[in-house]
Amino acid sequence: MKFIKSQPRTTPAEPSYIDRSPDRVGEMEVTQILHMNNGDDETSYAKNSTVQRKTLSIAKPIIEEAVLELLGSNIMAIESMGIADLGCSSGPNTLLLISQIMDAIHAIPSKVTELRVFLNDLFSNDFNSIFMSLPSFYQKLKQDYDNSRDPDQHVINPLISAVPGSFYGPLFPRKSVHFVHSSFSLHWLSQVPDGLNNKGNIYISKSSPQCVLDAYSMQFQKDFSVFLRFRAQEIAEGGRMVLSFMGRPSTDPTADQGTFYQFELLAHALMDTVSKGLIKEEMVNSFNMPYYTSCAEELNLVLQKEGSFIKDRLEAFEVNWDTGGADLDHNMPNGAFDHDQTITSSGQRVANSIRVVAESMLESHFGKEIMDEVFKKYTELVSKHLSNSTTRPKYTVLVTSLIRKI
Amino acid sequence: MKFIKSQPRTTPAEPSYIDRSPDRVGEMEVTQILHMNNGDDETSYAKNSTVQRKTLSIAKPIIEEAVLELLGSNIMAIESMGIADLGCSSGPNTLLLISQIMDAIHAIPSKVTELRVFLNDLFSNDFNSIFMSLPSFYQKLKQDYDNSRDPDQHVINPLISAVPGSFYGPLFPRKSVHFVHSSFSLHWLSQVPDGLNNKGNIYISKSSPQCVLDAYSMQFQKDFSVFLRFRAQEIAEGGRMVLSFMGRPSTDPTADQGTFYQFELLAHALMDTVSKGLIKEEMVNSFNMPYYTSCAEELNLVLQKEGSFIKDRLEAFEVNWDTGGADLDHNMPNGAFDHDQTITSSGQRVANSIRVVAESMLESHFGKEIMDEVFKKYTELVSKHLSNSTTRPKYTVLVTSLIRKI
Repeated sequence: MKFIKSQPRTTPAEPSYIDRSPDRVGEMEVTQILHMNNGDDETSYAKNSTVQRKTLSIAKPIIEEAVLELLGSNIMAIESMGIADLGCSSGPNTLLLISQIMDAIHAIPSKVTELRVFLNDLFSNDFNSIFMSLPSFYQKLKQDYDNSRDPDQHVINPLISAVPGSFYGPLFPRKSVHFVHSSFSLHWLSQVPDGLNNKGNIYISKSSPQCVLDAYSMQFQKDFSVFLRFRAQEIAEGGRMVLSFMGRPSTDPTADQGTFYQFELLAHALMDTVSKGLIKEEMVNSFNMPYYTSCAEELNLVLQKEGSFIKDRLEAFEVNWDTGGADLDHNMPNGAFDHDQTITSSGQRVANSIRVVAESMLESHFGKEIMDEVFKKYTELVSKHLSNSTTRPKYTVLVTSLIRKI
Repeated sequence: MKFIKSQPRTTPAEPSYIDRSPDRVGEMEVTQILHMNNGDDETSYAKNSTVQRKTLSIAKPIIEEAVLELLGSNIMAIESMGIADLGCSSGPNTLLLISQIMDAIHAIPSKVTELRVFLNDLFSNDFNSIFMSLPSFYQKLKQDYDNSRDPDQHVINPLISAVPGSFYGPLFPRKSVHFVHSSFSLHWLSQVPDGLNNKGNIYISKSSPQCVLDAYSMQFQKDFSVFLRFRAQEIAEGGRMVLSFMGRPSTDPTADQGTFYQFELLAHALMDTVSKGLIKEEMVNSFNMPYYTSCAEELNLVLQKEGSFIKDRLEAFEVNWDTGGADLDHNMPNGAFDHDQTITSSGQRVANSIRVVAESMLESHFGKEIMDEVFKKYTELVSKHLSNSTTRPKYTVLVTSLIRKI
């Protein structure tokens, strides 16, 4: 299978996503519904974002390289540096980027005296939690850098702001940003592709017809192109962008071991609640995830066509579904390994890691009442999948480093 | 009595505000504790901010005048206009300013194509609620202006962001803002004045010793001066600022009919809970509001000393304690007037209007448990005060329009 290259739309224009509300889930709806799970309980994003943290640590040297090249280049004698984190979410990872950039700025002599930080996520993201953690974060930054810094160096004053809204639209003033980062967000589409007929599935599946694959591919290409166009207006010439997101290792979406299986199992869990009579099958047929894992070839195509950015890097990494398993093994007495116990806990962790990102979309379509039931079944299915797997299942994460053309 | 003119501190350095936590309520604490009551129930700020709304409508023509003069002046050919609302809070009033400024910009030809909006309030403000209302707000703006506008005129793209933090510190990039607004916020001090010995009171009272009056006056002068210094860095030359806040009609703070009596009655309500054995008297003695109503003379003094702004206007207005009374009377059948009923409801409304702004500070010192008890008694006292008053009690609101010197 090859991903679609800007073919005309052949799928019917009629939306197939029938929500309980009469409107389809279009862009406006996704931007209002989608958010990572709030709070800090067992099914919160804050407690279940280790895959995202792992991705941040993979991207870290690439971010550092980009920031150092940006500050070291003759193009910019930046005094007031603008950085943005798109899809910053709300949890222990949110403020990590700022520390990383502050470290990078302090590593070399620069003229930066003002760091303007824009934290972006959708309107329903829990920004209040981030803001509540800022007083102690500002204090920590002050301690870390005021004491250690070279007395000849400028004091860097970080000004943190939140810019809520979809990154598939305008967000920042023209040419105001020098470095843009986005981790684990660009796999979210602006909307469910129009005209999907994807019975019994909630994402691309082995049984999905070709038109479903095409519709997803086209929606991604359109969205990513719109994303690049808006950022091109907002990023100063020579500015940089490092983007990490869920991808797939080849052009064939069914060869994607990560997202593909996760959503296949989630569809099975939903169909299980259908068989129990808790929801109607029509509800599953009319639901699809506004989500897509792209591949290197597809990204290159969009980058080339849009034309505002030079590609500096594009790399694929593998991340285990369950990043917490090793720790658990270490906790066993005398290094003993309880296989069943480990798989169950691992299944729970993996299921939670999907629940915290997907629940807001599912809940808005299927209702809050069945969520516990769905994710109980889902945990069973994930655990079974893990125990049947000969190798540890992995996600593919794509990381790209881009430069705004001058 | 005259307000103090930069005398050396004679009050002891030892903090008198003894919280349940060992630390005094200094700047860091106020900025973390203070917020208007969240949510939208009967004791929420959203439902009890009519005095604030009334103040906004008083300031409206002054805001319009300032924005029109700003855009009409030769000094600025602004394409990307920065506006900030300091102490924006979270409720039906929050986004009013943006509509007002959009109206003003559309009223005359200007080069503005980008409106950068900074909404500021303390870290614990409910920004999530504001953000949730943005999709419909953006849609309304689009409808209102896209259709009505002159086809030759530029489309104005508002970019709304939140900047949490104390306005007694740096908030925005240097020279990035052209118009700053603040309504009903600058009467909050950065901290409770040091060294207060104010037994049985929670604010300046007739029985407060002179050193209490002096300490409050000094704290305000210091805070307002710091406020002006930071804004002077952030506002572009020729930029404007319109500030409205609770004030008093003369230099004598005990002649202030509004805040003065409100906090006197609140202290009585607290002492009533002492007499019921619910809290210890020491708790009331060690609590003081980080709040101050200034007067025109005092403002002039600070403005002159700080020196970055030219005063264009400084006016005092009277606003009734209860702005909802008239509506209630209209609801009576056949225009009948039930005096007792009206006074009670009016007392409830006035008490709620104070509760929603003061509760976060009170709760952090006295505990959540006694809040209902305190405000029940407070409502009684306010109702009694209203029924004994021969004229409707009023607040004094000061509105000043300032220009950043070139």
